[in-house]
Amino acid sequence: MGKSRLEAFSDGVIAILITIMVLEMHVPHGADLAALQPLWPVFLSYVLSFVHVGIYWNNHHHLLHACHRVTGGMLWANLHLLFWLSLMPLTTGWMGENHFAPLPVALYGAVLLMSALAYYALQQIIIQAQGAASLLRRAVGRDWKGKASPLLYLLAIGFALVRPAVSMALYTTVALMWLLPDRRIERVLGSGSSHGEGG
Amino acid sequence: MGKSRLEAFSDGVIAILITIMVLEMHVPHGADLAALQPLWPVFLSYVLSFVHVGIYWNNHHHLLHACHRVTGGMLWANLHLLFWLSLMPLTTGWMGENHFAPLPVALYGAVLLMSALAYYALQQIIIQAQGAASLLRRAVGRDWKGKASPLLYLLAIGFALVRPAVSMALYTTVALMWLLPDRRIERVLGSGSSHGEGG
Amino acid sequence: MGKSRLEAFSDGVIAILITIMVLEMHVPHGADLAALQPLWPVFLSYVLSFVHVGIYWNNHHHLLHACHRVTGGMLWANLHLLFWLSLMPLTTGWMGENHFAPLPVALYGAVLLMSALAYYALQQIIIQAQGAASLLRRAVGRDWKGKASPLLYLLAIGFALVRPAVSMALYTTVALMWLLPDRRIERVLGSGSSHGEGG
Amino acid sequence: MGKSRLEAFSDGVIAILITIMVLEMHVPHGADLAALQPLWPVFLSYVLSFVHVGIYWNNHHHLLHACHRVTGGMLWANLHLLFWLSLMPLTTGWMGENHFAPLPVALYGAVLLMSALAYYALQQIIIQAQGAASLLRRAVGRDWKGKASPLLYLLAIGFALVRPAVSMALYTTVALMWLLPDRRIERVLGSGSSHGEGG
Repeated sequence: MGKSRLEAFSDGVIAILITIMVLEMHVPHGADLAALQPLWPVFLSYVLSFVHVGIYWNNHHHLLHACHRVTGGMLWANLHLLFWLSLMPLTTGWMGENHFAPLPVALYGAVLLMSALAYYALQQIIIQAQGAASLLRRAVGRDWKGKASPLLYLLAIGFALVRPAVSMALYTTVALMWLLPDRRIERVLGSGSSHGEGG
Repeated sequence: MGKSRLEAFSDGVIAILITIMVLEMHVPHGADLAALQPLWPVFLSYVLSFVHVGIYWNNHHHLLHACHRVTGGMLWANLHLLFWLSLMPLTTGWMGENHFAPLPVALYGAVLLMSALAYYALQQIIIQAQGAASLLRRAVGRDWKGKASPLLYLLAIGFALVRPAVSMALYTTVALMWLLPDRRIERVLGSGSSHGEGG
Repeated sequence: MGKSRLEAFSDGVIAILITIMVLEMHVPHGADLAALQPLWPVFLSYVLSFVHVGIYWNNHHHLLHACHRVTGGMLWANLHLLFWLSLMPLTTGWMGENHFAPLPVALYGAVLLMSALAYYALQQIIIQAQGAASLLRRAVGRDWKGKASPLLYLLAIGFALVRPAVSMALYTTVALMWLLPDRRIERVLGSGSSHGEGG
Repeated sequence: MGKSRLEAFSDGVIAILITIMVLEMHVPHGADLAALQPLWPVFLSYVLSFVHVGIYWNNHHHLLHACHRVTGGMLWANLHLLFWLSLMPLTTGWMGENHFAPLPVALYGAVLLMSALAYYALQQIIIQAQGAASLLRRAVGRDWKGKASPLLYLLAIGFALVRPAVSMALYTTVALMWLLPDRRIERVLGSGSSHGEGG
């Protein structure tokens, strides 16, 4: 079973997610600056979520690039990841509308946490299917980003109930940390295809 | 006529369906746990529907994998299936909003029933087009899952009006039954392409 | 310039259109039959529009199948067609919500009319680009369906203001007329590629 | 890393954007001409935005056609462009609903301005990656359209606060200016691939 349809379906879902989040920013009534005022927190939440979903798309792209055979387990691990990502418009809208109140900020983090764990699970399933010589295993290496992200999300969820501003700073930190493209996979795959000059 | 555009279009529709269902979960007003309370039944309905649509995408993937020539009849049988699936956001939202009340649970089952019948019809049309040596016919075999699902849905619709909880258990049962990937088609297709060592 | 991205984009837009139309069917409040009652005209409108958009996708599929080089003019003629189709969720919802009142039925027909004319224009632009030996020109032949549809829509728009039921019957007639797959193009293209045994 | 998935994702996002804009045109209550009256400015805004997004899709198509290797920087420059485009449904709806009031018209222009700058940045990143012999650099030449558009948008934003009608005329002018297909890239690429007869 090829992977092109899995990629196309995931691209479709992520493209829709990233786009319909904007539908949660309801057009304000009134045509003056006062009407735009309440939109600021919603807008900032939207930017943060757009970047997060963009990161997932980007990394997903690399992940499947390193994978050549698709199993039933991968299909479902992928759907599991898409499920948690699909909740982002909801938590993004709720957080923005309530001006970064404790519970919405915590729930926003919970969905990010579950997405991160689902991504990690998908990665592990692909690595296991590739066996001992897995190119992807070498590519992700110690995977400190993949391991640090859930911990930072957990920390942020804890802070949300007392200091939501710290949680927002942590979510932003994780986003910036990943914005650096995942050169590890690119490098190892590049060396793997061009007769493995070390890595 | 190739099948790639049929796959791409179906993937598009299913990706949109699975994603816009979340738009039916309206962001609650208020930022406390009390605001989240009424979202639980909607969330559970969403999970159940997400899994069901995921199963359809998965099986549809296998079905078209086993099909090499697309006819006009298949195009319309496919659109017919997509039509019933497209009603899932509506029935999912209605069922969740009304906390699994009898009529919404029955209607939810009716749309699942029609989807199952439409899927079965599409499968039969592909088998007929492939003729006596149909690989797909061998692959689905006695197709007990495909035949049991509509019966279980019918049963669930009947129960909905007296015991909606039983209906929900039946819908969940069908989902779990299909979550096991459809190895039959994979196996026969695998053996068909690697010089048919039995089956 | 290849046609695959044009196909993919059109498929995307049509897949979204056909799917978001369902968002216009708002989940009724209440969980009894009385709550479903007002949904009937909206549902019937949705079915009619789903079939119409399905027909456009089907025919668009054949049209581009017969076209090998994409020009700037085709891109815009295609966007023009997609523009009119994109208004269908709006007119479908308005017609259903107002229980087939005269003006909504007329506006529904106007959007169908403009879509039909836009489709015809796209077809002519492809034929002209293919020159005198155009396979598509032979394929569509006298194109009676393509010429009858706008006339029937015009007639239906006129009837809408006095007898909307007649208009609905006419819209349904056009849909049924096209539901028969467009075998002309398939036949000529088939004979064209398999050394033209008549046609 | 191939560019097909980048194209597919961008097509997906743009297809969704161009389609969900119509969801901002809420079906009016009432079934007479008076109900349609307030829809006119929303409809005109929709047409203008549809054309603008169509232009971006068209130019994006040409841009990636001229690009053979995708880098991490391009992925993010592309997401940056999609981010600004994704705000168009919001500003389109706000502008139409408020009948072209000063601030909404200015904000509409601000999103167009940011989209134009993001497109320019993406183009520059591709040109730099291609190095001194960049085919795309030759193709865009002096790029007067790409340079004039942001200036005209800036001018329009200034006019919005005093004469919104002038701003609307300027937005329309930019759209018409781009509606002429970008033959420069087509020509140079065409000559580049068919042994460079000048250019």
